[in-house]
Amino acid sequence: MSRVFNFSAGPAALPESVLRQAADEMLEWNGAGCGVMEMSHRGAAFTSIVEAAEQDLRDLLAVPKDYRVLFLQGGATQQFAQIPMNLLDGGKASYVVTGAWSRKAVKEAERMASAIGGRIELAVSTEAHGFRRFAAADEISLRGDEAYLHVCTNETIHGIECFDFPALAAHGVPVVADMSSHILSRPFDLRDFGLIYAGAQKNIGPSGLTVVIVRESLLGRAWAGIPQMLDYKVMADNGSMLNTPPTYGIYIAGLVFRWLKEQGGLAAMEARNKAKASALYDFIDGNDFYRNEIDPASRSRMNVPFRLREDSLDKAFLADAEAAGLAQLKGHKSVGGMRASIYNAMPLEGVQALMQYMDDFARRHG
Amino acid sequence: MSRVFNFSAGPAALPESVLRQAADEMLEWNGAGCGVMEMSHRGAAFTSIVEAAEQDLRDLLAVPKDYRVLFLQGGATQQFAQIPMNLLDGGKASYVVTGAWSRKAVKEAERMASAIGGRIELAVSTEAHGFRRFAAADEISLRGDEAYLHVCTNETIHGIECFDFPALAAHGVPVVADMSSHILSRPFDLRDFGLIYAGAQKNIGPSGLTVVIVRESLLGRAWAGIPQMLDYKVMADNGSMLNTPPTYGIYIAGLVFRWLKEQGGLAAMEARNKAKASALYDFIDGNDFYRNEIDPASRSRMNVPFRLREDSLDKAFLADAEAAGLAQLKGHKSVGGMRASIYNAMPLEGVQALMQYMDDFARRHG
Repeated sequence: MSRVFNFSAGPAALPESVLRQAADEMLEWNGAGCGVMEMSHRGAAFTSIVEAAEQDLRDLLAVPKDYRVLFLQGGATQQFAQIPMNLLDGGKASYVVTGAWSRKAVKEAERMASAIGGRIELAVSTEAHGFRRFAAADEISLRGDEAYLHVCTNETIHGIECFDFPALAAHGVPVVADMSSHILSRPFDLRDFGLIYAGAQKNIGPSGLTVVIVRESLLGRAWAGIPQMLDYKVMADNGSMLNTPPTYGIYIAGLVFRWLKEQGGLAAMEARNKAKASALYDFIDGNDFYRNEIDPASRSRMNVPFRLREDSLDKAFLADAEAAGLAQLKGHKSVGGMRASIYNAMPLEGVQALMQYMDDFARRHG
Repeated sequence: MSRVFNFSAGPAALPESVLRQAADEMLEWNGAGCGVMEMSHRGAAFTSIVEAAEQDLRDLLAVPKDYRVLFLQGGATQQFAQIPMNLLDGGKASYVVTGAWSRKAVKEAERMASAIGGRIELAVSTEAHGFRRFAAADEISLRGDEAYLHVCTNETIHGIECFDFPALAAHGVPVVADMSSHILSRPFDLRDFGLIYAGAQKNIGPSGLTVVIVRESLLGRAWAGIPQMLDYKVMADNGSMLNTPPTYGIYIAGLVFRWLKEQGGLAAMEARNKAKASALYDFIDGNDFYRNEIDPASRSRMNVPFRLREDSLDKAFLADAEAAGLAQLKGHKSVGGMRASIYNAMPLEGVQALMQYMDDFARRHG
């Protein structure tokens, strides 16, 4: 077996110890007589798994008591529709567009609003400037009667991250945030948000699981025609088990949460993630063969897009990288270039190996 | 390690060889340098996995070329809303109610119809007769202009199965069937249906994956306000990858499909499933300590509910069964008693062990 350094944007690398434990427990979990995949979701064994997963996640994120943790399905894209269906309530909502994902979110919200009533407004879009930074606080101007303000706090494709959550909260309306690609990468105050959501396949676990954390006071205002499965309140009232949840995904997420605690929790992860990202951005900035065009204050610690001096070298760069055991470095097709996704499970050694390779490649082709 | 005979209704037992392969490949799949859970869903490795899974499923079910196979999320309960959103198109649909699941389906369809337009009619309900049989062909009377006729062809909780699919098709409107708990248990002609759907967690793989197979001509009539993720046509046009699909669930399903082929396909599975179910029903009918009250012509080969002579013995029966390595025999709380779910992955030896135990228990308490 030879595992590579896997820079995939998602589904992404998982901690090796998590995978080893999952493999060991595949045929039988903890004396249960069967594997986790084969367990009734309502039995004692799985109940203990899901309760531990929720508690560990609550501990890691310091989730306040009046916030509910939901284990859902459908990814962030389903949330793009689910959020207005649950929260718009015939009113209006404001969207910040800072990259491909928040642009998708606002489009789907507009479709939903025209079907179910309500209005979607654009708070600000940085698209005209090429999506090179997060929105500045003074670019967002709200009236205060908005049902919510939607943001994507880490744009996976463009490599843009928001670091000032209190500035978002200061607008005085519930902030709803797509945190798919940086949740659990650092501590933050959940009270700055009304709702956060994340597809699991970057920093949590396998795809097919979506985590939503929502303030209880926002529940109960869903559109009357909402499918039961999409209603946060119905799911909260049923402990995320209106029907069979994605049990195996919840189990793997639980193993990741425990691994994060063993690593020292989110403060420790933030220190590591800062070290990894700083090293890589410093290397890129210091080497004129590579460039990253994102405003340094908005550079994502999770997704580092970069370009070579000449795009014509991209193919050779990727092929040689694969050969060197550095996988999935191709940038998203909509922006081109390269992208190194360096989530929690990517060790510093992986980033160091990448920089060493980049340095070698630049020398050979510079 | 000691694996029990697991009679869970779902998530349910999986073939041991499938679990062993999944464990072996957890850290690295086929030289890919990472496990399946860590792979980009758009990369060559996962593309080969999903394409093989679809092809094997097509082979097993002899899926006609003009039917699309979709790998979705949300379980049957999400389909209860998704079906009218996709197919009702302002018209009317007729529902056959033969147990708890079809009853849930019609309730959700009625909620959706009142929100999006259209009308839901009850073709027939067998509830007044205690859900002891499937609907007779002459009980269903349609006008022919219905958008679809909805049935649940295997009621997991009540243990009722429909064996005459051509009689359903004969009504001349597209038949939409919830096959969650008996898909892949026997061959049938998909042309009798406009759409079939199944949560994976009984006969396919892990929960969190939903398989939909739909005739192409039924696509493109969705309600204008449908969330993109719920639109069959959008998902079909995107190869089930509008966003990241539940990749690990698709992988496990693919291993199960290959296992089914190795077993000889669905004709071989039907022979085995008949043998298992006949043995168990014959034993129950021949032992006056146990009873199953379902009309013999409608008895499910997958879910066998039964009662003891006295309900007061249920607790002892379950406790002794657990001790004997026979797990998850408790009936659904809404009907009480016992239930043995004997899906494809349950070997005949498991059913024999159950009968041996039941016989012993009856002697001790009879």
